[in-house]
Amino acid sequence: MLNPYQDLPGTVSIVEVGPRDGWQNVAEFIPTRRKIDMINAFSACGFAEIEVTSFVSPRAIPQLRDAAEVFAGIDRVPGVVYSALVPNERGLKQALAAGVDKLVFFISASETHNRENLGQGIAQTLAGIERMMASIGSVKPVRVAVSNVFGCPFEGKVPPERVAELLEKLVALGIREVTLCDTLGVATPGQIFSVLSYLDTCGFESDFGLHLHDSCGRALAGVVAGLQGGITRFDSSLGGLGGCPFAPGAAGNLATEDLVFCLEEMGIKTGVSRDLILQAAGMLEKNVDQLAGHMLSFLRGCHKP
Amino acid sequence: MLNPYQDLPGTVSIVEVGPRDGWQNVAEFIPTRRKIDMINAFSACGFAEIEVTSFVSPRAIPQLRDAAEVFAGIDRVPGVVYSALVPNERGLKQALAAGVDKLVFFISASETHNRENLGQGIAQTLAGIERMMASIGSVKPVRVAVSNVFGCPFEGKVPPERVAELLEKLVALGIREVTLCDTLGVATPGQIFSVLSYLDTCGFESDFGLHLHDSCGRALAGVVAGLQGGITRFDSSLGGLGGCPFAPGAAGNLATEDLVFCLEEMGIKTGVSRDLILQAAGMLEKNVDQLAGHMLSFLRGCHKP
Repeated sequence: MLNPYQDLPGTVSIVEVGPRDGWQNVAEFIPTRRKIDMINAFSACGFAEIEVTSFVSPRAIPQLRDAAEVFAGIDRVPGVVYSALVPNERGLKQALAAGVDKLVFFISASETHNRENLGQGIAQTLAGIERMMASIGSVKPVRVAVSNVFGCPFEGKVPPERVAELLEKLVALGIREVTLCDTLGVATPGQIFSVLSYLDTCGFESDFGLHLHDSCGRALAGVVAGLQGGITRFDSSLGGLGGCPFAPGAAGNLATEDLVFCLEEMGIKTGVSRDLILQAAGMLEKNVDQLAGHMLSFLRGCHKP
Repeated sequence: MLNPYQDLPGTVSIVEVGPRDGWQNVAEFIPTRRKIDMINAFSACGFAEIEVTSFVSPRAIPQLRDAAEVFAGIDRVPGVVYSALVPNERGLKQALAAGVDKLVFFISASETHNRENLGQGIAQTLAGIERMMASIGSVKPVRVAVSNVFGCPFEGKVPPERVAELLEKLVALGIREVTLCDTLGVATPGQIFSVLSYLDTCGFESDFGLHLHDSCGRALAGVVAGLQGGITRFDSSLGGLGGCPFAPGAAGNLATEDLVFCLEEMGIKTGVSRDLILQAAGMLEKNVDQLAGHMLSFLRGCHKP
């Protein structure tokens, strides 16, 4: 038997996205001070990067209306990248003013989801990214998160050719770092490996990361497929909090603790302390009232005949 | 890139173990009539086999004290194997009287767990299996479930050499069908593949199945590793109910719905209807009061520094 587990990467980096992707789904406002305390606890864990918040309209996501205050209040640990999601030029101004280390733009691989999520077509979103790239020049590192790469709640499967086309356009805008997101948690490991192989044959020199949801119990299987396909950067969320508020059926980010424990036990270094993330997860449990209900709901939402 | 997903088996069989391994962990007694109705619903789903109950002491597992009544009450669908766990000769008598299709004996790969779980050493349990094999002759199909193959709550990692030794002894007793159980849900996919490769080099002609728990989110990743290692029979439990009452930290069987949806979407035939298992899971939710708390708890129990 050929061993598909023997030549995996020895080191990966983990982007903790809970404060952004997890908390945005918590209906009850988490007081700013608590957010800051929790992010400070996360900072000690050894993550390569923390997605701290999102500079979106407070009407769209009221939970993150304190983005600037959170950024101003956290203690930054040297070596940790503190990033934020930025949907448009107004958000960009606020993010730059807050001293964000890295800007994360986002776009969907599915035209319908892009319209539902961002209220505009992919072409318009690309034009916005182009303007933002021009306005920042090379002063800030940038990543683009591409959602629904492996499936869309409205369009079903997204052909990899369409993903590649979009990626070409991002490359043309000077984007090197891209996260491929399975927003719904529907990607099978076989599919993830196929898409990565396809992108490999396209010759992209992009730095690809993976963002997986565990709605259907597949997230870690997808991580392994990602590793086999050469991925060394993974998003995850402490406690498995998260989902996409505009993608029906989506829920439950890959839990950071599940990711870190599995990788470390496979001999893959994450740089993250297992003791400290368990402490941080305990803190999260105390501070986020809806945690229980939320973690439960993501077990149920996804399967459809 | 070599594709580890292209030569997977085209067909697998699924053993629904929820009525035995799931319900035994539910503290409040599920009325016998409800159990029968649920098993009848499961019977329509297309499972190769249903582990209906366990002929254990009612003191050890009060939930399954109605084993004989359940067996007498269910409608048997031709083609479905209705099996039961049998811990000893008293249980064997009851199981044979109930007309069980297949007998499932069990033993642990870890001496300490065997003592904790069965109150006797591995050698004694093997002697019991030998006596039971002698008393039934070849009238009934038999399987042995070997627990803690990939790790033990008391002894930690179990060396594959020790597993192989135990398997040799089972072969000598005439046992062909064996299920390798990750009772704690701690096996990494790499470890599962390694153990299967090791057993392959030992030249076993046994019919191996896999029984995985999702306590750490790894179950489906382990299924993929199992498929790559040649496994085509998997245990799972509708709703992810389950755990081992005598293995601290163990909780949460691989959910049947997670298994079936993932395999079918990967083009692997399970024979199980996705529509019908969702209906059955809904029925389970209505009938098992503790389902919510249970599903939640298994998300939390396993990670230890």
